Amino acid sequence: MTTIFDNPDEFAEDQLEGFLDLYADRLRGVPGGVVTLPSGEPQVAVVIGGGSGHYPAFAGTVGPGLATGAVVGNIFTSPSAAQAYSVAKAAEQGRGVIFSFGNYAGDNMNFGIAAERLRKEGIDARIVVVTDDIASADETERRRGIAGDFSVFKAMGAAAAEGLDIDEVERIGLASNAATRTLGVAFSGCTMPGADSPLFSVPDGHLGLGLGIHGEPGIEDIPLMRANELAELLVSRLLAAAPADAGPRVAPIVNGLGTTKYEELFLLWRHIARLLREAGYEPVEPEVGELVTSLDMGGASLTLQWLDGELERLWRADAYTPAYRKQRAPIDALDADAVIGAGDGAEDAAAPEASAAAARLTGVAVDAIRALHAVVEEKEDELGRIDAVAGDGDHGRGMLKGASAALAVADSLPEGAGVGWSLGRIGRSWAANAGGTSGVLWGAALEALGASLGDTADEYTAADLADAIDAFCESIVDLGRASLGDKTLLDAALPFAEAFRAGVGKGASTAAAWRAASTVAVDAAAATAELRPRVGRARPLAEKSVGTPDAGATSFGMIVTAVADTLDR
Amino acid sequence: MTTIFDNPDEFAEDQLEGFLDLYADRLRGVPGGVVTLPSGEPQVAVVIGGGSGHYPAFAGTVGPGLATGAVVGNIFTSPSAAQAYSVAKAAEQGRGVIFSFGNYAGDNMNFGIAAERLRKEGIDARIVVVTDDIASADETERRRGIAGDFSVFKAMGAAAAEGLDIDEVERIGLASNAATRTLGVAFSGCTMPGADSPLFSVPDGHLGLGLGIHGEPGIEDIPLMRANELAELLVSRLLAAAPADAGPRVAPIVNGLGTTKYEELFLLWRHIARLLREAGYEPVEPEVGELVTSLDMGGASLTLQWLDGELERLWRADAYTPAYRKQRAPIDALDADAVIGAGDGAEDAAAPEASAAAARLTGVAVDAIRALHAVVEEKEDELGRIDAVAGDGDHGRGMLKGASAALAVADSLPEGAGVGWSLGRIGRSWAANAGGTSGVLWGAALEALGASLGDTADEYTAADLADAIDAFCESIVDLGRASLGDKTLLDAALPFAEAFRAGVGKGASTAAAWRAASTVAVDAAAATAELRPRVGRARPLAEKSVGTPDAGATSFGMIVTAVADTLDR
Repeated sequence: MTTIFDNPDEFAEDQLEGFLDLYADRLRGVPGGVVTLPSGEPQVAVVIGGGSGHYPAFAGTVGPGLATGAVVGNIFTSPSAAQAYSVAKAAEQGRGVIFSFGNYAGDNMNFGIAAERLRKEGIDARIVVVTDDIASADETERRRGIAGDFSVFKAMGAAAAEGLDIDEVERIGLASNAATRTLGVAFSGCTMPGADSPLFSVPDGHLGLGLGIHGEPGIEDIPLMRANELAELLVSRLLAAAPADAGPRVAPIVNGLGTTKYEELFLLWRHIARLLREAGYEPVEPEVGELVTSLDMGGASLTLQWLDGELERLWRADAYTPAYRKQRAPIDALDADAVIGAGDGAEDAAAPEASAAAARLTGVAVDAIRALHAVVEEKEDELGRIDAVAGDGDHGRGMLKGASAALAVADSLPEGAGVGWSLGRIGRSWAANAGGTSGVLWGAALEALGASLGDTADEYTAADLADAIDAFCESIVDLGRASLGDKTLLDAALPFAEAFRAGVGKGASTAAAWRAASTVAVDAAAATAELRPRVGRARPLAEKSVGTPDAGATSFGMIVTAVADTLDR
Repeated sequence: MTTIFDNPDEFAEDQLEGFLDLYADRLRGVPGGVVTLPSGEPQVAVVIGGGSGHYPAFAGTVGPGLATGAVVGNIFTSPSAAQAYSVAKAAEQGRGVIFSFGNYAGDNMNFGIAAERLRKEGIDARIVVVTDDIASADETERRRGIAGDFSVFKAMGAAAAEGLDIDEVERIGLASNAATRTLGVAFSGCTMPGADSPLFSVPDGHLGLGLGIHGEPGIEDIPLMRANELAELLVSRLLAAAPADAGPRVAPIVNGLGTTKYEELFLLWRHIARLLREAGYEPVEPEVGELVTSLDMGGASLTLQWLDGELERLWRADAYTPAYRKQRAPIDALDADAVIGAGDGAEDAAAPEASAAAARLTGVAVDAIRALHAVVEEKEDELGRIDAVAGDGDHGRGMLKGASAALAVADSLPEGAGVGWSLGRIGRSWAANAGGTSGVLWGAALEALGASLGDTADEYTAADLADAIDAFCESIVDLGRASLGDKTLLDAALPFAEAFRAGVGKGASTAAAWRAASTVAVDAAAATAELRPRVGRARPLAEKSVGTPDAGATSFGMIVTAVADTLDR
């Protein structure tokens, strides 16, 4: 949905005004579009263009090393011949003008007329049409221009910046287009400013293969697929359409159409990079991001430009425009051989010497972790459902990740390790692997439990365990900044600690006191349903959670109950 | 909708892998996140972070002049303390570590624990929490961190790159946060990878004021507004929340949340810039684009950092990261005083001398243009409706823009100007102002009509007009690459030309022949309803258009009919 506008009919002009204000230090607005301020020796003017709605195409890639000017039409509409003529006159530096644009009827006409008029005035004017979209037609010259526009503009812009003459820049433009292929997919349509509905839509669970960039639907709707399959589809079809003389070096672009997120494009690139390398190709300075968009359309395309030495030099060349900036110098200044990252070397240290009692207690702790892991694994979905009422539903998954990591450490402890050192490693492993708030709380709390017990006591009493459980709770209070009644894990843990200490004070065995305290914890967890959270939740969610117990308190109750069984044995 | 992923649970790791492949020449992946390769003298490590789903925050802004490392959590989830510790150890260059992140409970905990652990190892570790979101709380220290994250990271990154010590970089970070305020609006919610529905939604026709960046809804839903009102809202509330010692220079960020398009942000910036200047502020090197996003959320925020001399120096400093690159040198190399753009000076030339007959015919042409304008104005909506069936519905609007521009020229022609010169000006004005394909066709065709008539004949016959009408049609054939039967303007224009010539051949007066030919044109236009377009339309639209006449042919029929009345007089 295009949401920010004033008069929808004037969207293109209005946005251009903001853009020109923003880049007033480097671009000049002229009737019909924008031109870069000149620098150094005069160069061939590369004037690109087309409709609006494609940012950064076309005005966003005007500047040193790329286009000299951009003609700016209305949304998805060819600029007029007079606009193209006007921008060309402003961009021209005495060495001729090359118009370059994607292959559409209106653009061909208007840029064609503008070139004619320039020639009548004695200005050398050429045209390089981009035809990269392999889905649009079988014959190369009938194909549309989509994201490959950028590849062709980049080659010509770099050639012009090198000072080459108009024949050379035109030759390079044509060669660059001949070496460039694109295939794209649409996930969702785009909506014009002021319109209520998108120009097209993709059926649910499908993607449109062979998208256009003006709200044209894909050529074929096919079922939606995972990223690895999508990468396979794009790479295999593009490689099948390679130019006849294709070498092994390619400049890839994974282009986002507007709504598709950079992180999604990175994920897609991961598979594309692998597939290209497996096919014997070497990706050269890939670009992943938005270069030619289509308003708020969802989708992505893959462009490959097959490189020879000349095209590779131009592809790698520096450029500095509002939306596209490339400079080798800052990267070359980095020390590629630097040794990075000591990492957490502390974890590799050997266990300190421990008393027999501390080593024996490690065995109890390992059994408890095993029981904990089993119950979390069993209850994962239930905990997720409870958490989903007012949270993001990941409590079960996060707890299981942490418990699994803890169990892996517990299962590989060195012989004779003390309970303090062991629970420290177990806790850090939990925190490192669970992620999220519950992960760090459980990890730190287990570490605190261990630190309280230590590795050196000659014997451990039930009172020592009560102290350790208090340390467990204190660590959570310290880190979580929550209090009793805030609808957190503490609402089960604090009553548990109190009941355990009371039971021990009355002379109950560790196992009996723990079991009785477990019942208290489970009841207390259930009672959190009546509470309203006061920490770390936005207000609407806080209201929503009333009537459902806290997931963290619930999992605590489950865990101490499961652990009680190991103490009985 | 997040669409590209493999296993939704592993989205964060998978995208990071692609990102690291892409920037392997400058970044190193370490357990828990990424660090930049070091360069030059050791510097204070600025380690930023938080959950994934915010690209370019946080990994996208690691590099020279900005962050030293970024900790990468799962989507919208704090990274663990172990991750933060691991990245900090890798980023640390012997001058200490500053963690910086937005103010959230999980991040505070995890980065806090990591800092503690670093300190235990003798590494100086500090924390700078960003609290810029004025909607989230009244007390500054309780506010969330949103797009102002970037402003604070930039100040600290630049300070570290200058070689300042950890006390100074920390002081600057705190000062930068104290000088930074943000307010945002949400237009639509975001969807987690693999989820069926967004985390929240904004009611139709509304916006959520005071958005969060983790799928938290806005604090208040208010009716959607035009861009100028939205700018007013954001600017006025931010200025009301200015720091006590605020000066007149501000570094603004207009941040897009994910789905909101750059062109929309430019449009919004236009109003914000005006309002800031009206309020006496000087915007310094504004940034407009995506810096801190929230998956595919729709929305935007405005951040202002009030600058003193130090913060302005740091804000203006160069930086080179995957997503944010700033270097003054290429801009300073541009010639800001260059005289740009001769523009279309030809239009200012005086009319060439014309014969009396040619000057008389100009009067006829002006009357015809007036009639043409009147009928297009009257029929604008009807033409729009016809065009909307298979096109973008702008035919009526485009024709009226062109006709209005043509009429303006026609009304201001110099006394005695010939019909050839006059129709040339009229045609170019039409094409320049109408935009789109029909604009360039009508403009060029009128110019061709005039060129055929010329300015020098001693008399003009009906046969001369028939020749001129043929030139009109030929120009359209040449430019539009269409033929009879392709469902275009030509399907009315060619029968019209033929009928006019036939009528003239049979001795009819110009007016009578024209009127008869007009009837032919109207019938031919209606008959285009049976045709299927063969030029410049995607296939699905071609099918859709069957049953509706071509809008261009229809307007041609209307126009020649209206012009016939002026010839009768």
